[in-house]
Amino acid sequence: MTTTTAHPFNTAISLADNGNGHYTGQTTPAYANMVGPFGGVTAAAIVQAICQHPDRIGEPVALTVNYLAPVSDGSFDIAVRAARTNRTNQHWIAEVSQDHGVTTTATAVFGTRRDAWSDTQATMPSAPDPETLTGTTTPEVVPWMRNYDMHYVDGGVPTDSKESASSTTTLWVRQRPARAMDFAALTALTDVFFPRVFLRRGRMLPAGTISLTTYFHVDGAELAQHGTDYVLATAHAQRFARGYFDQSAQIWGRGGTLLATSHQIVYYKD
Amino acid sequence: MTTTTAHPFNTAISLADNGNGHYTGQTTPAYANMVGPFGGVTAAAIVQAICQHPDRIGEPVALTVNYLAPVSDGSFDIAVRAARTNRTNQHWIAEVSQDHGVTTTATAVFGTRRDAWSDTQATMPSAPDPETLTGTTTPEVVPWMRNYDMHYVDGGVPTDSKESASSTTTLWVRQRPARAMDFAALTALTDVFFPRVFLRRGRMLPAGTISLTTYFHVDGAELAQHGTDYVLATAHAQRFARGYFDQSAQIWGRGGTLLATSHQIVYYKD
Repeated sequence: MTTTTAHPFNTAISLADNGNGHYTGQTTPAYANMVGPFGGVTAAAIVQAICQHPDRIGEPVALTVNYLAPVSDGSFDIAVRAARTNRTNQHWIAEVSQDHGVTTTATAVFGTRRDAWSDTQATMPSAPDPETLTGTTTPEVVPWMRNYDMHYVDGGVPTDSKESASSTTTLWVRQRPARAMDFAALTALTDVFFPRVFLRRGRMLPAGTISLTTYFHVDGAELAQHGTDYVLATAHAQRFARGYFDQSAQIWGRGGTLLATSHQIVYYKD
Repeated sequence: MTTTTAHPFNTAISLADNGNGHYTGQTTPAYANMVGPFGGVTAAAIVQAICQHPDRIGEPVALTVNYLAPVSDGSFDIAVRAARTNRTNQHWIAEVSQDHGVTTTATAVFGTRRDAWSDTQATMPSAPDPETLTGTTTPEVVPWMRNYDMHYVDGGVPTDSKESASSTTTLWVRQRPARAMDFAALTALTDVFFPRVFLRRGRMLPAGTISLTTYFHVDGAELAQHGTDYVLATAHAQRFARGYFDQSAQIWGRGGTLLATSHQIVYYKD
């Protein structure tokens, strides 16, 4: 007899198909954040729902997820519909809801890629190999972080109340236990950074993502080549402005492939 | 007798309130692009519709606009609804439609700002004053550009088939005729750049914005202080990947205020 234990990430994004574009998921303790689940896993579940939809054509190109209210522990409904299907791309609208109302809205663009002149303009940050860096101990109050092996290169979680002039954090990160990269995993990784304001202020304070936008730069075949290796994830802020700051991030494959760029606007109280 | 002629931008975003969150607008020849209207003016009309909605609280913080299909010449309906109202922010969903179906979807976050530690992390590009730079002649095929005074600092429209190693364009720009800055105008300005792939390839080729996300960093009072002055707008790409590239932009007030940061994913054929 063979017993297969599902990877905790697969459990967290596992969806039952209820027909007509409705999918039911369940929050899992493994992906809990301080309030509600990790935003990255909610975004990943939305991508997963669209991927499972029978009308879906192509692969993720762009995704915007808006966090309206915390998802409560328990089941949630993801309703997805194709707003328009073009020749090479498809636009989706998604809403996550629970008994208490809508918690999350999203729009997504799926598309097919073709041969065309291509180039990477951004430069991968230089970093020593992850194996040479110390892993990070996860704070008890943030359960979802235990699902990631994190090796900070720059701008780690502030522990000594020291303010930083830079808002940049760069880390090697991969899923724990190891799991092959796919679009759901990559989506979750775009939200793996602690809030930039913690770094600048040298301490934790109330903060939460309001809206997250990710652009995907590879297709599924290119993404599969990544395997279970670490990605180099880097993020910085452009402006902290009276209660809201922005963050821009890059997710790089170890070999120098820019897998995704991602942006978010974050509420903070200081 | 006094005759008042409306500013062409005000005409382009003028909406009739049909009740229940439905607003009707009309495309105008002044804001025509090669196919359909300038994407920036469609985004501005969506912001305008939410601003006019009686339930609206606060001011724009984030906006994502998805371009599903060209808007045809004539009237269009903008349907907006508040998906959730929180204590300090409000989430909106919008759809633009015409007889032939949905052309544009959008989500927006409006919010109120409060006193909090604030800082600008990004650095304004250095540029000579706009008055010292030559203005740009608008190509006949792109009517909407006539509504903007543009003075390129770096990375102007390629005219000599010369490829550029850089994807960065920086320009001083303001509305023509002069018009006081507001959120609708700022929204349109985030889409004022020609496609980055033109610069890299040294020529025009088929390209169009698929999804645009803007984060606003000022409130209406701060924005009003800008008056009718030029903004310094800068944009670059991170990756051109088999038919889709991303663009990240900053819009700066002349005095060094970062008014907005904006990102888009663009389809191209090469």
